[in-house]
Order: sequence, then structure tokens, then C-alpha cells
Amino acid sequence: MKKIIQNTLLGSEIVDILIEGRTITKVSPALAAEHPDARIINGENTAAFPSLINGHTHSPMTLLRGAGDDMALKEWLENCMWPLESRFTDEDFYWGGRMALMEMVRTGTGFFNEMYFNPHLMLKALEKTNLKARINFPVMDLNDLETGKKMWKDCERFFTETEAPEGVQLGTVLHSVYTNTRESLEWIRDFAAERELPIHIHVSETAREVEECRSANGGMSPVEYLKSLNLLSNRVIAAHTVHLSENDLAILAETGTAVVHNPASNMKLASGVFPYKALRDRNVPILLGTDGASSNNNLDMLEEMKLAALLQKVSFEDPTRLSAQEIFDIATIGGAEIFGTGGGAVEPGKEADIILMDLKSPAMFPAWNLISNMVYSASGMDVKTHISGGAVLMENFEIPGYDKVFEEAGRCARRLMS
Amino acid sequence: MKKIIQNTLLGSEIVDILIEGRTITKVSPALAAEHPDARIINGENTAAFPSLINGHTHSPMTLLRGAGDDMALKEWLENCMWPLESRFTDEDFYWGGRMALMEMVRTGTGFFNEMYFNPHLMLKALEKTNLKARINFPVMDLNDLETGKKMWKDCERFFTETEAPEGVQLGTVLHSVYTNTRESLEWIRDFAAERELPIHIHVSETAREVEECRSANGGMSPVEYLKSLNLLSNRVIAAHTVHLSENDLAILAETGTAVVHNPASNMKLASGVFPYKALRDRNVPILLGTDGASSNNNLDMLEEMKLAALLQKVSFEDPTRLSAQEIFDIATIGGAEIFGTGGGAVEPGKEADIILMDLKSPAMFPAWNLISNMVYSASGMDVKTHISGGAVLMENFEIPGYDKVFEEAGRCARRLMS
Repeated sequence: MKKIIQNTLLGSEIVDILIEGRTITKVSPALAAEHPDARIINGENTAAFPSLINGHTHSPMTLLRGAGDDMALKEWLENCMWPLESRFTDEDFYWGGRMALMEMVRTGTGFFNEMYFNPHLMLKALEKTNLKARINFPVMDLNDLETGKKMWKDCERFFTETEAPEGVQLGTVLHSVYTNTRESLEWIRDFAAERELPIHIHVSETAREVEECRSANGGMSPVEYLKSLNLLSNRVIAAHTVHLSENDLAILAETGTAVVHNPASNMKLASGVFPYKALRDRNVPILLGTDGASSNNNLDMLEEMKLAALLQKVSFEDPTRLSAQEIFDIATIGGAEIFGTGGGAVEPGKEADIILMDLKSPAMFPAWNLISNMVYSASGMDVKTHISGGAVLMENFEIPGYDKVFEEAGRCARRLMS
Repeated sequence: MKKIIQNTLLGSEIVDILIEGRTITKVSPALAAEHPDARIINGENTAAFPSLINGHTHSPMTLLRGAGDDMALKEWLENCMWPLESRFTDEDFYWGGRMALMEMVRTGTGFFNEMYFNPHLMLKALEKTNLKARINFPVMDLNDLETGKKMWKDCERFFTETEAPEGVQLGTVLHSVYTNTRESLEWIRDFAAERELPIHIHVSETAREVEECRSANGGMSPVEYLKSLNLLSNRVIAAHTVHLSENDLAILAETGTAVVHNPASNMKLASGVFPYKALRDRNVPILLGTDGASSNNNLDMLEEMKLAALLQKVSFEDPTRLSAQEIFDIATIGGAEIFGTGGGAVEPGKEADIILMDLKSPAMFPAWNLISNMVYSASGMDVKTHISGGAVLMENFEIPGYDKVFEEAGRCARRLMS
């Protein structure tokens, strides 16, 4: 069915946007009269932007939002997150995932790169929406080879049994070098190479991780160790990458590995400052991500853009670093190109992955520079309408089915709290 | 008229909150039946918190939101802000101010400490709402004594002619040591001492300001220079205070001067990192502020709390620094005590300065720790109802009169853009 977004601001012009199937087919003023059969989506007092691309998150952890804060990383993981996660049932993965999807729809994320246990339940959660994602099967053997071997089998079965719906990609996860045997790292390397699958992995998030890797692996940093295993390539997306040596930077560049900046998490856990300019100067592909709701504590990519820009400016004592346009491009067209979503820009030929921002919100007023308002002023709550792959997921702040998901996820959260 | 907020979550209990006049008089479950004459404010699916206290802002600069970003401070001020501000008419001060008030109502700020030109127009803007504020008359003679003398007269006239409405306080502003003659600094000191007025001033925002002050004043830092003029006391609120020596810290502590942290502005302009712990350890009274919308770029105190906590953690490599509860207290009860607003907590005897947060928003879900959700997850757009001094300024996301202000402020902004 045809849809038309009527009278929305795109750049500096009020236009109509024609959507046929999953695709934007025409952008021009006054299209509605030519297409009387189209469903009209009201765009008055809105500005159209591509929806945002979240490069790294752990969706079901929405159930753990606020369960532990202001703690040292080790204490937080060992005494708070892991014990709670160990109590997750299938219902928690599913409804936690669906609640995260609701938050993404609400706050304008159109695609996300997922890293969590039980990806088949996240895939099931995704059936209920048209949101796009890369869902990755995780291997994390905690340095036990028997566990690893079992996970390899589960991984093979997952890829044999799973067919991804349109707009959803499948990939693999290696949680990190420190939570996997060398055998599991190599097994995933070969498995992913054979099937041309992406690999998502945490790399050099903390100074301690780097130190321990150097101790355990003959002085090699995590990046060097992964390179020595022939595990880096343009199919690999490395999350965090806070602590990088000159040699690490060169390796990431030469292998075509992409990296994900997670400013809120890096700040909240005091992990450190992402070396944005050093990576950009070497043309390393850069993504932006929220990490999970337990270390952020939200999935709001608009806030994440602001944090990224502000953290670079203050850390390197230079207010011109990482401009609004630059971080906006990373979170939209840049991410779309890295993941091959087909979206990332509001123009004919692109997938209709579109958010309409409420121009009557104080944060979007006035219109000196709407990209600046998006990055520095607006929150995800200023997203008024959300379209993904041509499907209307939220219109005029209303998300069909929200109450049911809120209730079921609430039931799961209360059980975890008890 | 009596009002009752019915069935809101306060701490861990669902209660009704009785408001008589400006004051909270009772908090208890099921009060509505006892007071059939009270106006009912629906509190279902909300949590009640005190509204937030913004320690430093420049309200009418909402009209300049996004007019210049990602620029070095000097270029930004001289080529962007000052030329635009020089074109402000009375209408711009008034409608820019009213639009800022709308943003504060929308995002949960109940009191703000204002620093801008033409405070009589901000007072006029305030007549249309019940928001609380301290409105300060500014002296900034740009080191010209004749200008200064004219400003002293204007200042005297302002205090002779102006009667502040209930909930509004009056004070003075010295923009900074570098934008005023010594004579103006001393004149305000004496004028404020005589009338027991507060003084609001920018202090040691940038390293350059400190260097230039040391050069011009025999090696003294701005804090030392102000102390030498006998200009620091518990009536003084110093904004920014990023670059402080050990001696500066001691002086602030011994004089009882309060300071305002403005993390978004300090980060965006790359001014530096506020020495929170050093100030707290010396019991210097600390406030939180947004600065103006041109350097933030919003007036959202919920976002500001998150930025404050995250900036301390990452800058001092310690995730336990500046906890959610600590920054929440600064932005509520701490600020309320410093300004003497009478509010700052939802309990009997306090002024009814209350916000109801939407518990159905993804950011407030689930309820492991609502203070954590307020600080790390929610945005000001999750405020559902806002009560100030007993008056309902926003109910169920609706602000009476919003459209008119949006339209008039839009007209002003478009003229400035042309």
C-alpha cells in the first residue's frame, strides 16, 4: 500500500514523501493530490530525518535498568548483573527484548546491532515489529573448552534452523578475548568466514582488559591478539575500543574492522575516552551505540549523539571536535552503509526508515540548524512518528500494542526484583 | 482552593498529596474521600518528585538555540552570539523568556537563577506563570566607567521600581571580573551589602580567563581578586568555577560562596571539568545549572544531572563518583535550601513544587531505583504534570497557552534569522 507523509520539513523545504512498499519513491511538494489512494501520514509541524542506527546494544537488559549504578565495573558485573542475568527465563529474554524494541521505536532507533544470550527469542520479539536489526549468536565459553564445544553446536544449529525475516540480518558474537578460549575464537573465525557472517566482539573496553590480555598473550593487546589469530576483517565490528595503541589503530585500519563508540557506558563505568579523531584520521569505520540499558541507562540515540560530541570536546580541550553534522552522519547514513540497511537518508531509492521530529517541542525550537537541535537539544522523546521499512511503528506518539508489552515486561521485572 | 494529587508513587508507596494554597499539607493514601471539595489531579502511573532547581541560566537565549555550535569560545561569542544579541528587541527578551519558561515547565524545572539583560522583561514574562525564580539585575560595563555609572543608576532604579511577585526573588549580577571595571565590582558589592542582595557572577570558567586575570591583577586568580575586593560571601553564587587552585578552593569554602556546575556548557565549549569532589570535600555549597540554550543546547535539568554524574566518573576514572542520589539532591533539596524556595522535597510543610514523572515511559521502566531512572535514563520530556507553588502549570503533558508563546517566539526567532 502507498503511503504519503504530508507536509513535513525536509532540509529547508516542506515536502510530501511517497512510500511504496518498503521504499521511498518520491520526495516533492504536494504529492498527495496525485495519489488519492495513498494512506496519509500527517507531517505538519514535523521535520523528517532518517531513523538512527544503534551499533551496539544488549536489548533484554532493559529489565535491569537501574538495578545497579555507581559501582566499580567488577563489583557491578559480579555482584549485580551476572546474578540477575542468571535468573533470566525465556520470558525475560522475550519481554525484555520487546520492551527494548518499544523504547527504540519511541526514541527513533530504526536498526540495532544486538549482543545477548538466546538470540532466537530476540528474533521472536522482532516478529512483532518491523524494526531492523542484526541479531548475533553469542559464543562466550568462560574459558572452558567443553562449554565452548557445546556452544559451537548450538551456533551451528541456530544458523541451520533460523531464517531471518526481511530487514533482519544474522551474525555471530564473540563476547571478548577474555571470556573465550582460543579454540572458540578460532572456531567462530572459521565458521563466520565460511558463511561470510559478521562477528561482533567487545574489544579493549577497559585498561584492565588490555593489561590482562598483554599478560596472558605474550605482550599482545586485544587488537594484536585478534590480529594474530587472523580474526579481524571488514566483517568484524568491535565495540568500545577505548584503549588503543598506535599499533592497534594501524591494525584496525588495515583490516577494515569497524568500531562502535559507546560514550554513555564508557563514562558511567569510567572506562575511558574513545580515541575518535585517531580512528577517524585512519579511516576506521565508526559506529555509535548505546550499550545496554544497565550501563547507560537508556537506548536513546539522540542523547548518545550529544554525549559523543561533548565528550570529545571536553576531553581534547577543543570545542570544534566531532561536530553535530559529523556525529549525526555516523548515527544515520554512516551506520546504514556499514550495516547495509538500505536506509540512512530520506531520499528516493532509500528504504523508508524515517522519523518525524516534533517541531513544536521546545528542544526543536527555533530552526537555526535542525541538525544541531537533533544532536545537542532534542531527546528521543521528541520523535513523533516512526516509520521502518515502510511500516508505521509509531504515529503521533502512539505505538500500537505498547500497553500489553509494558504490562508483560513489568511482570518479568517484578519477578526479578523479588 | 484545595488540590489532591491522587494515586501517585512517592518513594515506594502509592499516596494522595493534599495541597492547600501554595503548600503541601498532607501526604497519605486515600485522602480524596476526606476532601470532596478538592480538585483532583490524576497521579495514576506517575511518580512524584520535587521539581528541579536550575542554578544558572540565560533564559531569552532560547531564541539563539543552534545559532552557532562547534566553534571556539572567542569566535562563537564575537562572531555569533554578541552580534545576534545586539539585535534583540524588547519583544525578543520577553518572548524568548516566555519560551524558556515553557521549556522549563515542560521539562520539570521549578526554580531558576537568571542572568541576562533587561530583567524587567523577564519579570514581566514570569507574570504569566507561577514558576519560581531569582531574577538578577546585570552590571557589565565592558571596562568603561561611564557605561558602568549609567548601569549603577539603572540598577538603583530597578530596585526602587520593582516589586517581585510571590515566589520570585531579586538579586544582582556582575557578569564577570573581566567584563567590569573595578569600580563597578565595588559598587555592586556595596549596593548588594546594603540591601542584603545576592550577587551572581561567572567565575573561572576557562583557563584563559584565569590567566588573563592573573596578568591584569598582580598574579591573582579571579577568586583571589574577588576576595581581595571583599566580594565573596554567602550571598554570592559563582557560575562555572572550572579552574580553581587550592587557594581558590579554600577561599570559596571560608567565604561561604556557592558555586554552580554547568556540565553541558563546560563540555560543549571545552571549558574543562568542574572539580566536584574538591569542592564537596570542603563543604562549598554546590548547585547544578544548564547555562543558556545557546551553549547547552537545552534547559533540561534531567539531562544535566546525567551529564554531571557521567563527566565526574570518566574524568576521574572512578565509577563511584557523584552518585545518582547525590546529584539528584543537589538539583532538588540542595538547591531549594540555598535559594530558600521553600520546596525541594515532597512532604508536608514544603511548598508544592512537584513534578509527576510518567512511569509508563520506557525510560522510567522498571522501578528498581526511581532516582537512578530520573538521573541516568529519563529526559525532561518524561515529566507529565508540573505543579509550582501549588499552581498546576502542566497537566498530562498539556501546558495552557503554549501555542501562543510558541508562535510569538517563532516570529521573534525568524526576524533574528533574517
